[in-house]
Parts: sequence; structure tokens; C-alpha cells
Amino acid sequence: MSDRGRVLLAITGMDLDAWKEAFTSHSPDLQTVSTVDPAEAASIRYAVAWKPEPGSLEGFPQLRAIFSAGAGVDHLLGYPGLPDVPIVRVVSPDLTQRMSEYVAWQALDHLRRGALYRRQQRDHIWDEPPGQPAAGEVTVAIMGLGVLGTDAALKLKGLGFRVTGWSRRPKDVDGVITYHGEDGLTAVLADADILVVLLPLTEATRGVLAGDLFRRMKRGGPLGAPILINAGRGGLQNEDDILTALDAGVLGAASLDVFNREPLPADHPLWEHPRVTITPHAAAASMPSALVPQMVRQMEAIEAGKPVENLVDRSSQY
Amino acid sequence: MSDRGRVLLAITGMDLDAWKEAFTSHSPDLQTVSTVDPAEAASIRYAVAWKPEPGSLEGFPQLRAIFSAGAGVDHLLGYPGLPDVPIVRVVSPDLTQRMSEYVAWQALDHLRRGALYRRQQRDHIWDEPPGQPAAGEVTVAIMGLGVLGTDAALKLKGLGFRVTGWSRRPKDVDGVITYHGEDGLTAVLADADILVVLLPLTEATRGVLAGDLFRRMKRGGPLGAPILINAGRGGLQNEDDILTALDAGVLGAASLDVFNREPLPADHPLWEHPRVTITPHAAAASMPSALVPQMVRQMEAIEAGKPVENLVDRSSQY
Repeated sequence: MSDRGRVLLAITGMDLDAWKEAFTSHSPDLQTVSTVDPAEAASIRYAVAWKPEPGSLEGFPQLRAIFSAGAGVDHLLGYPGLPDVPIVRVVSPDLTQRMSEYVAWQALDHLRRGALYRRQQRDHIWDEPPGQPAAGEVTVAIMGLGVLGTDAALKLKGLGFRVTGWSRRPKDVDGVITYHGEDGLTAVLADADILVVLLPLTEATRGVLAGDLFRRMKRGGPLGAPILINAGRGGLQNEDDILTALDAGVLGAASLDVFNREPLPADHPLWEHPRVTITPHAAAASMPSALVPQMVRQMEAIEAGKPVENLVDRSSQY
Repeated sequence: MSDRGRVLLAITGMDLDAWKEAFTSHSPDLQTVSTVDPAEAASIRYAVAWKPEPGSLEGFPQLRAIFSAGAGVDHLLGYPGLPDVPIVRVVSPDLTQRMSEYVAWQALDHLRRGALYRRQQRDHIWDEPPGQPAAGEVTVAIMGLGVLGTDAALKLKGLGFRVTGWSRRPKDVDGVITYHGEDGLTAVLADADILVVLLPLTEATRGVLAGDLFRRMKRGGPLGAPILINAGRGGLQNEDDILTALDAGVLGAASLDVFNREPLPADHPLWEHPRVTITPHAAAASMPSALVPQMVRQMEAIEAGKPVENLVDRSSQY
């Protein structure tokens, strides 16, 4: 047993073995466990958690911090009886990079009429309809300007898009027109051709992607109707409202990586909608090999009495 | 008639009216014609040409320059009896921007397994196979480091890809590992997961995208087998060899925007290949409204005896 104690892996819905292997490979002296004999509860100093089972995080008197194994922390903040220790979020260049890839990929697929050209290919049709806008004629609004939203904004800007951003509190991002608060939301939506959502899931954001918000988006832009890209959390979106807005032409198309129920049930109508692009919560996989070194460094900092980075603020819920 | 004379539009396969309108809107005093009475041949001082009909460019004693209406100039250099006047290529930020959008879009679609997730959506399958590489683990090689290739290289770099480049003659591009000449070609191919082709069509490049070249590409990279993206010219590629290489696993996939025969015949087997993405020569449309101002500026420079930019070198054929 190392002097950092043992690490509890309270993980569901991710590959537990990959996490074990990543710890073993990076820190062979650091023991990980996924179940704990009550007699040894005091050996647990840290937990790495993803959607932990009820009861799995309590009863560890020496617990010093809980690390979220993925970008969101709603799965922890919604956990009944969450121990009163620091909650540490994942901020990883690898995860940030992957999220920006996803956002750029989907924004370009909508800009460059991917669905149209795939349909034409299926039917052997050679036709280039007029009116293809350049990226600079299209405004992408990023909701949520944390680490992920900021990086996505800068990469979209680099591709030539006009980029705006919205966050709850004021934020500055180079070359990006930023808005904040409720008034700012009205302004950013009214000006958005593509809305990219990278918000945390909190009491304030749950269900925010609904009919009322969609109706506040820009009409008559160069892409026809506004487009939604949600790579944040499924709980942000009202899926019935998305389908209604698509069929009413209030939304032109949607790329969804997250859903209220995951896996998305096989009989859910979103699968079949011709203007919906579904990926299986794959926008930015948490790669244990990329995240463990950072977690171990943070554990060492805590042991040395140094300040912890990327602490979750329980009052703002992210 | 303006003192710049009249402008002949010798254009096929593009929207002639859009060119006329763009000239009228930008320079109302500049007369454009698409047919010329022989008695008025001396009034033609400039021609804007795209795949001109045989015989359409000769017999203009006052012709001072021919402007290509699109990025390639092979349609002019292959024209029998091409008048001995300067040939001016299109170099437009708009066209460059659109080409880089296409290249980034297709590179990301291959990186992020677009075809797999579309197939899974069709079948209502929720599955994220392991092994998704990040862009930094994937090498994109750009063949052709002119204005288009250089811009695409920098934008791919900005998205996080490892980027290399090859050109006939040595070129430097910031942050991009560049190769040149025949030895350089062997090195760049052996290291490429995705090959993006933005070469001009010349005697030296015709048919270069063939079995021999595909077999020199990297094996066992993070995407499985190497991927071809041709947004240059159809004449660069041997389409039978592409199909053979795909079916033999020598190529993993291909995105083709250009073809030997355009429109691609409806019965061509490329349409149906599950690992081929076809767009109808739409990667970077020549938008007359974006190109005419630059052409008129160049005409004015020639009238004023100033040097012409973006002159085609007939000996190197681009």
C-alpha cells in the first residue's frame, strides 16, 4: 500500500478494467479497488467515480477527494449522501481536443450539406445546389464557455466561422463575441445559425433546450433554419420538443451525442429522423490513460497540502 | 465601351449568367460578351475562361490576358492553339477558405468514424468501439503546397492533426513537416494516414493517384488502412485502381470531389462503394461575386503597365 492510501474506483457505464490498467501502468505502487471490505474502509483516501452505485461512496473516514472520471459532475452532485470532500473535475487536453473535433466535425457537416450529398450519392445524383455559404457567413454560438466551450470556439474561429459565445457569468474569449445572463441569451440566440451546447447539467440548465429556446433562434439564416449540436448532457434537452421543432421547421437539423436515457432506446423516434445525427455519447471519450496521470498528480498535491486544481463549486453545481 | 475594352466570357460547365451578373454588379461600365462578331474582334482585351469550347479563344488581336475562372488551369494549358498571352490563375481567399472547409470536413469525418456511426444510426445501434484515435495521433499528408494546400495544412494543424506536406519543389509551411521530390514522396506516403491531394493537373501528375502510389502508403496506422481525399483534379486519379485498392484493403476509404468524367456517370461503381464519399465537384465553388473584383483589379493593373499577380508558368504547367 502506498502512502497515498488506496483508490476506490466507483465506476459504472465505463470500462472499469481500462481504469485499473491505466493506474497500474502509470503508478504500479498505487492500489485500486472496486469493492472494499468494511474492515479496510480507512485505507481509501481517494475515489474515482462515474455514475457511482448508491451507497458506494459512503463510509470512508479517510476519504480526501472524489475525482469525476468524465467531464460532467452532475452524476456526483445528484448522488444522495455525497461525502463532504472536494470534488475534482476532469480537465484534460485530450478530452478537450476530442470534444472540439466533434464540434468542428458536426458544424462542418451541417455547413457543407453532408446529409444532402450523402442522399444524392445514394441516388447517384450529381447536383450542386446554389447558395452554399462560406463558414464566415455562418454564426456558430457556443453555450457554455468553460474549458471545452472556449477551445471549441477558438477552433471553429480558426476554420473561418463567425463565432459567438454565451455563459452564465461574463467571459472573454479572443476573437469571439461573448454574451452572458438572460439578456445575453436572447441576443446570442437571435444571431445563431448553429447552436453548440457545452453547458454543465445543473438545476438551472436542466431541460433548457426546449421549444421556447428554439423559437428564440435566428430565422432565415444562410442554412435555412437553425441547427442544434448538443454535446453537453442529455438532461439539458427536451427530446419531444426537438422532434416537434424539427418537424415544424423551427430547427433545421440536430446533432445529438447525449440523451436523457443512454443508451438511447432502440425504438426512440430520434434514431429515424432524417435530420438528426446520433452518436453514442462518443464526442469526447474519457481515456483513462490520458486522465490518470493528472489524477495522480492531483492526489500528490493534496497529500503535500497544496491547493487542488479544477475543484467543483457545489453552489454553482459545476 | 470602357477603356479596358470588352471581356469575353468563354465559359462552359459553370453558370454563365452568374458571371455576367457579377461583372455588371461590380463594374457596370465593363461590357462582357459570350459571342463576338468577327468585325468586333479587336474590342476584346480580356477573356475569362473555363473549359472553353475549341476555337473560342482565338482571333482576338488585342487580347492581353486570359483569366481562369476556377482554381485549375489544365483546361487552358490543354487548349489547342492557346493564345500567347499571360494566363492568370484564380487565387481567392473565398475559394481557399471553401477548399479548406471541405478538407477539414472530410478529414474529421474519417477520423471520427462518420460512416460507422451513420450505419449504426440506421440500424439503431448504440456502440462506441474502442480505439478512437485523437487527431494528434493521425498524420494528414497534403500533396501540393500551393495556396490551397498551405491553407488546408494550417487549418488541419489548428484542429490538432499531425500534418505533413509534399510538393515538387521545396516549400516551408509553419509547423508542417515538408518533403519534396521523388525521395520525399516515398517518405511522406510511408508516414500518411490520410492523403489530401491538392495538386495541379500537369503531364507529370496525370494519373499519379494509382495502385503503385497507394501501395507506398503507411500500413497499420490508427485508422486501419490509409485514406485518400482528392479535391484536386479528376485526371490525377485512376478510378479503377481506387476501387481495386479499396477492395484489397490497400486503401481504407476515399473522399472524392473530382472525377475523370464529370458529372460522374450514373452507372459508375464509385457511387455505390460503401467506403467512398462523393461530392459533385463542390469542394470549392468559384463564386463569381467573390472572384470578379480581383479580376477587374488585375485588368486595371495590366492597363496601367503594372506586374500581374498569380501568373501561370507554362513550363511547369501551373
